[in-house]
Amino acid sequence: MSARAGIVVTGTEVLTGRVADRNGPWLADRLRELGLDLAYNVIVADRRADIEAALSFLAARGMDLIVTSGGLGPTADDLTAEVVGAFQRRRMVLDEALEGRIAEILRSLMRRWPGADPDAVRTANRKQAVVPEGATVLEPVGTAPGLIVPPAEGRDGPTIVVLPGPPRELQAMWEAAAAGEALRAALGAATEYRQDTLRLFGIPESEIAETLRAAEAGGVALERLEITTCLRRGEVEVVTRYEPSDQAAYDALAAVVRERHPDTLFSDDGRSVDEQVAGALRERGWTIATAESCTGGLLAGRLTDLAGSSDYVLGGLVVYADDAKTALAGVPPELIERHGAVSTEVAAALADGARAALGADVGVGITGIAGPGGGTPAKPVGLVCFSVAGPGGARLTRSAQLPGGRADVRDRSTTVALHMVRRLLAGERDDGGDQ
Amino acid sequence: MSARAGIVVTGTEVLTGRVADRNGPWLADRLRELGLDLAYNVIVADRRADIEAALSFLAARGMDLIVTSGGLGPTADDLTAEVVGAFQRRRMVLDEALEGRIAEILRSLMRRWPGADPDAVRTANRKQAVVPEGATVLEPVGTAPGLIVPPAEGRDGPTIVVLPGPPRELQAMWEAAAAGEALRAALGAATEYRQDTLRLFGIPESEIAETLRAAEAGGVALERLEITTCLRRGEVEVVTRYEPSDQAAYDALAAVVRERHPDTLFSDDGRSVDEQVAGALRERGWTIATAESCTGGLLAGRLTDLAGSSDYVLGGLVVYADDAKTALAGVPPELIERHGAVSTEVAAALADGARAALGADVGVGITGIAGPGGGTPAKPVGLVCFSVAGPGGARLTRSAQLPGGRADVRDRSTTVALHMVRRLLAGERDDGGDQ
Repeated sequence: MSARAGIVVTGTEVLTGRVADRNGPWLADRLRELGLDLAYNVIVADRRADIEAALSFLAARGMDLIVTSGGLGPTADDLTAEVVGAFQRRRMVLDEALEGRIAEILRSLMRRWPGADPDAVRTANRKQAVVPEGATVLEPVGTAPGLIVPPAEGRDGPTIVVLPGPPRELQAMWEAAAAGEALRAALGAATEYRQDTLRLFGIPESEIAETLRAAEAGGVALERLEITTCLRRGEVEVVTRYEPSDQAAYDALAAVVRERHPDTLFSDDGRSVDEQVAGALRERGWTIATAESCTGGLLAGRLTDLAGSSDYVLGGLVVYADDAKTALAGVPPELIERHGAVSTEVAAALADGARAALGADVGVGITGIAGPGGGTPAKPVGLVCFSVAGPGGARLTRSAQLPGGRADVRDRSTTVALHMVRRLLAGERDDGGDQ
Repeated sequence: MSARAGIVVTGTEVLTGRVADRNGPWLADRLRELGLDLAYNVIVADRRADIEAALSFLAARGMDLIVTSGGLGPTADDLTAEVVGAFQRRRMVLDEALEGRIAEILRSLMRRWPGADPDAVRTANRKQAVVPEGATVLEPVGTAPGLIVPPAEGRDGPTIVVLPGPPRELQAMWEAAAAGEALRAALGAATEYRQDTLRLFGIPESEIAETLRAAEAGGVALERLEITTCLRRGEVEVVTRYEPSDQAAYDALAAVVRERHPDTLFSDDGRSVDEQVAGALRERGWTIATAESCTGGLLAGRLTDLAGSSDYVLGGLVVYADDAKTALAGVPPELIERHGAVSTEVAAALADGARAALGADVGVGITGIAGPGGGTPAKPVGLVCFSVAGPGGARLTRSAQLPGGRADVRDRSTTVALHMVRRLLAGERDDGGDQ
């Protein structure tokens, strides 16, 4: 049995969805790396009784470690340190040395907010130096210190790691905590887990269900593997978690998936299509440029998400209006007139226009109907046309009918486009077969 | 006391963060509209014991309604219907009429995936027609039916609404459920809650803490209001939840915030800066275009997130490479040479270039160092320069040192740019004062 962990994310703003929870997912990866089995992520409002109940639930479920995120700020709705202290039966005390260090941080903050009232800032932040007695203080990254709070002497129960809500602060502080002695002591002997991901594009999830049944029928020890399949941005992901002694079972499963889905399995090493495209562009020494209509810049934005993308992304054109398609990407007005702005012909002209305007090796054109308005019986909402053009007349052009609402169609379009770029870079061509 | 609700999101892919939870936040809004007090969102892996424990926890905490999302798919890790049935002490039975309706849906699905094995699809989906006896079936939006499962006759406890994981399916199905009798019966008399949001830009969160203390000292009945403050994409949000009888307390709080923060409070009616910019552009009949370097198209992507944005967004230039800044946006190479690509001078030239290239009324230029590489002592990572140009020489130009990692800097930059556009549209100008 490996050690089990739970996460408590506090914050009405997260519970009500005004802020997306970036900490739970990030912590999940860190806990797995430490060999902990993450069982729950409980999101609660900033209410004392609800935070207490979440801690009690996780302790009762046998968690060895609980990580909390949020509720360390300067406002009165920030309760976590106090609630955790009480839960662990530890008195709250003012740590004067810590107060001094926070004051130092505030002095430099004041320079960024010259209009702020120094007294307000100091009062608001003094409470951040009041910590449970006997807790290990994790030095502030912003102004809030974190805490490692073991149960009081003579009591059983989980150690609780208390981290601030802002992802940047939480991440830096966790790294410091993970390197230190107090956390290691709390973890004891954790089982190592491996996790591997297979990614497929262009098949329905039910096909994977059938493949898993076939693998089991063929003698693969699926009961040794914790397999989850899900749809993500238009791709099917098969994530498998297993103990190192079950490596052979995983390898057998991966072999079955490879054999049954050679055309749609595009990644078995954890790399995303984004990383594969970046790698292939670097390998060929090619540059890329985009001309986007319905995605409005999201593909260029996605291509430049990766650090170092300036090595191969030259830029792009966002040609939302038809006049812009002509003026910037050189799409002939007659072409738009004849085939409509949403057509494979215009997508191809956009790809060519992107290459020409930026002087890039690869050009990508996207034009479609993201909705909710603008659809017709012949060209319904969700119809998107794509073209990718490369040197020497290399080209792939497709249209697709994408499901979902406006945001889904736009996001899914960037995935389809990246897969077409990946295929072009792998040598696939419209005129038949690979080259 | 209003009725309380909890959410259980199942799925290892969500727990481990490979898929962001879009359902919890969406359901949170719907539950609030129904007057339910959302207390918890528990994310669990696809493991029977963990799902059961989450349901038990929420039932023990006195929830009147539990909504689950996910785990209704065709694969063996999809357990929710069965676990909920057992939790409510209801036998699982095959609903043959439902099986027939699912078969009908599958026939049309098959046309989209001509390569899929019909037997595989049928077997994989038959389990979706096995439901707890006495449950109300919610018609499938994809292939999975939802369920409303009350406790077995003579037992107490929450009614559980079981919904599929894909947001599009969940949302459509919830709307159907909310309109029906079975859910209303479960809710009984729910208290109405109001929720209002104040949004500020350009002040630290600690100033708001001080303002809340001042309001309380001035006699505002803060104890009647559930107030949470948070940082979101560089803005401070103050969200207040209250019962209708406490409207006066909220109005008094809003008045204090308005009085103390006239320059930074930009929204008191729930509208985002995105919506304000869209509204102001429509009102003036102006069009907008962008020229982006470090944000790589994200601002254009954000401007076109809103349906109908083609009325005022003409398009944009993504000028990642310096040559592209010159070729597409007409930035003189000497200007880049003299001031560097990241400079207010180049930002201004980009804004002008966007206006000229697209023929737009408003042009926005962004250039900065998103990191992690590329920083220097004089121009560190996080330095971003912005310029917004409008008709008649109207202009606002700024530089900002933005905190966080690459993704933070890029996202925050789009927020800063939108606020500058908002201010320009409101008549603010660099050459002093409003016009």
